[in-house]
Amino acid sequence: MDDKLREKLFAQGRLAREAARKLGLMPAEAKNKALLAMAAAVEEQERDILAANQIDMENARGKGMSGALLDRLLLNSQRVKGMANALREVAILPDPVGEVVRMWTRPNGLQIGQIRVPLGVVGMIYEARPNVTVDAAALCLKTGNAVILRGGSEALQSNLAIIKALGQAVAGSKLPEGSFQLIETAEREAITIMFEMRDFLDVLIPRGGAGLIQAVVNNSRVPVIETGVGNCHIFIDESANPQMAEEIVVNAKTQRPGVCNAVETLLVHKREAEKILPGLGRRLVELGVEIRGCRLTQELLPEAKPATEEDWETEYLALVLAVKVVESLEEALNHISRYGTKHSEAIVTSDYQRARRFLQEVDAAAVYVNASTRFTDGGEYGLGAEIGISTQKLHARGPMGLETLTSIKYIVYGDGQIRR
Amino acid sequence: MDDKLREKLFAQGRLAREAARKLGLMPAEAKNKALLAMAAAVEEQERDILAANQIDMENARGKGMSGALLDRLLLNSQRVKGMANALREVAILPDPVGEVVRMWTRPNGLQIGQIRVPLGVVGMIYEARPNVTVDAAALCLKTGNAVILRGGSEALQSNLAIIKALGQAVAGSKLPEGSFQLIETAEREAITIMFEMRDFLDVLIPRGGAGLIQAVVNNSRVPVIETGVGNCHIFIDESANPQMAEEIVVNAKTQRPGVCNAVETLLVHKREAEKILPGLGRRLVELGVEIRGCRLTQELLPEAKPATEEDWETEYLALVLAVKVVESLEEALNHISRYGTKHSEAIVTSDYQRARRFLQEVDAAAVYVNASTRFTDGGEYGLGAEIGISTQKLHARGPMGLETLTSIKYIVYGDGQIRR
Repeated sequence: MDDKLREKLFAQGRLAREAARKLGLMPAEAKNKALLAMAAAVEEQERDILAANQIDMENARGKGMSGALLDRLLLNSQRVKGMANALREVAILPDPVGEVVRMWTRPNGLQIGQIRVPLGVVGMIYEARPNVTVDAAALCLKTGNAVILRGGSEALQSNLAIIKALGQAVAGSKLPEGSFQLIETAEREAITIMFEMRDFLDVLIPRGGAGLIQAVVNNSRVPVIETGVGNCHIFIDESANPQMAEEIVVNAKTQRPGVCNAVETLLVHKREAEKILPGLGRRLVELGVEIRGCRLTQELLPEAKPATEEDWETEYLALVLAVKVVESLEEALNHISRYGTKHSEAIVTSDYQRARRFLQEVDAAAVYVNASTRFTDGGEYGLGAEIGISTQKLHARGPMGLETLTSIKYIVYGDGQIRR
Repeated sequence: MDDKLREKLFAQGRLAREAARKLGLMPAEAKNKALLAMAAAVEEQERDILAANQIDMENARGKGMSGALLDRLLLNSQRVKGMANALREVAILPDPVGEVVRMWTRPNGLQIGQIRVPLGVVGMIYEARPNVTVDAAALCLKTGNAVILRGGSEALQSNLAIIKALGQAVAGSKLPEGSFQLIETAEREAITIMFEMRDFLDVLIPRGGAGLIQAVVNNSRVPVIETGVGNCHIFIDESANPQMAEEIVVNAKTQRPGVCNAVETLLVHKREAEKILPGLGRRLVELGVEIRGCRLTQELLPEAKPATEEDWETEYLALVLAVKVVESLEEALNHISRYGTKHSEAIVTSDYQRARRFLQEVDAAAVYVNASTRFTDGGEYGLGAEIGISTQKLHARGPMGLETLTSIKYIVYGDGQIRR
């Protein structure tokens, strides 16, 4: 263990704890004012931010980083504007802190209520995209949480420039020092130290690829909210409207294939397969999708390559689709139970009972009837903003809006009651 | 690692997973019927259960176990009746599973709802009290969760007899095999293996002393809900009604000193101290309470021993009370923030602003104005039953009723919507 780094991070943790105590009591007005000042600062310091991003981009190219990763890392004038707008959008959302979720009176006269409070200090571990720095700072500030940010080492210069702008925007304001802090090192050991910071972090939220998320889940002593991995399925039932089924599958696979709510495996009822697969398959192939199918799929669609066991397990995040013809809804449910990652699952059907059964029996964060899996998103759900998509069951499940960054406390009004 | 034990526990985990899939779909009627059958079986098999408990008691006495622990372990006819009644009480509670928490319609026509679902498989680790076996089995069954129970090794014979009775009650019913399972060994290593069962357990809930809870929190890879430790304070403000303050303190300290919501430190405003402390102190001493006080407390109350730094940190769980005279509400808030365990905190006051400030600023699961801290309890709050009291902020905080054993899933009704 690097004791010096550890001491530094623990000092950041102590500062965050102190800040959180004050932040939790800050009225919405003051938080919103800070968010708007931060938005202005990001725009004003665009040149510095882009110059810092240029350094990150050159280093990344020098290390031979792939095109997709480079694109995530890249900032330009439009993206900086997008970050500023994200801050403004969070500013106008309602503040969940202080909401009395419910309140009731007991027979002895005690009035008992649950009031929404911040979690305290949030730790975020993420990868190349610098806009996560802004989003996380905004969502945590809005909910009265302090946040310690650990972005990807490849984005360090960009993140330093962003945090500098955000920090200058609120210097001299009522926002306590340490409300948002970046871990200012590229050393990987910083993550391992964060895992141990149970005294300073109330929750750790990893955002990124499966490798990062698993490393956090398996090693953190701080409670984690698991996000993101989505091996999502669409099941076309025998009663499906073929046109609707085709549009939904094409949308879920091709509209944005690199994200967690894109479909990865298509299950087709055998009575529907002959009618649907040839046309749908051709259209997907024309859109550049590689099909990997079971034996029956291959018979109906000569372009299909054979699917292996591995295909059923894979989140491609690319223009690849595994296709399996199934005997029944039962088989589809079993396949999803076995290979799904409990993210987003959809059925296309016109049958009432089977729609109902699918909704009841599929165990996932989001279960759809006759809609694209791509809708699993805080904005699309109307939650206003999103810190990630939880695939676990504790605390938060599905798209995580502002409320998921809060807890409750019981407040009890008495008149001298004692327990008998 | 004991590979054989590990294999056995993993097999129990797999069985629980399978059971959970079916249990989650079981209607309330079937679950309630099972709970009533289990209640009858516990009463019918009282003789076997008491005989098994007799063996545990003899072993415990042989090992020199203390009186308080022996009392926790002890079963008698009345306590067996109590276990049966607990099962019946859970049977008549409303089933939270299937409740649609909210549902709304998006501009594109998608109807999006959150429906309450079971967590899946719950792991319980607890100590000597055999009634926890019944309580946990009942609450988990009611909420459609499978449960794996690991009671204290000193209660193994009692727990085996109880689980045998519960199991016979539901044999041949629709309840899937493995809905509730006991880890049938006294080996401590079983706990370590549970920590690794992330694939089979959705949550681990430790109930017991601080040592057990810390061991689980620090070592489990399965998400944990931290329960229980309560270093609770009462602050008597300068405007307090002296009579009310006295009754509340006496109740919170002496009504049941061995539990987590009993008060451990009394803070008294200096302007109130002279008026209140002598009489209150004498009454507490007469009730057998040992007072450990600050210098001022000792001046006002000659019976008080001097308090050390350690006293402010200690959850006595006994007839001992630390007492400190403070200069102001501010000092009381700072003391609570520094030494409190975020369990239950109370102010006695007649001042509106200070009541409000205390409720807002104290960060604890339950914050009281003019009531005893002893009310922090699922039954007292009207939650019907309680699996424990959470002192963490994620997922559940305060007394954990049936709802805290559930998660939600998003259900989405569409008509062919795709994302643009």
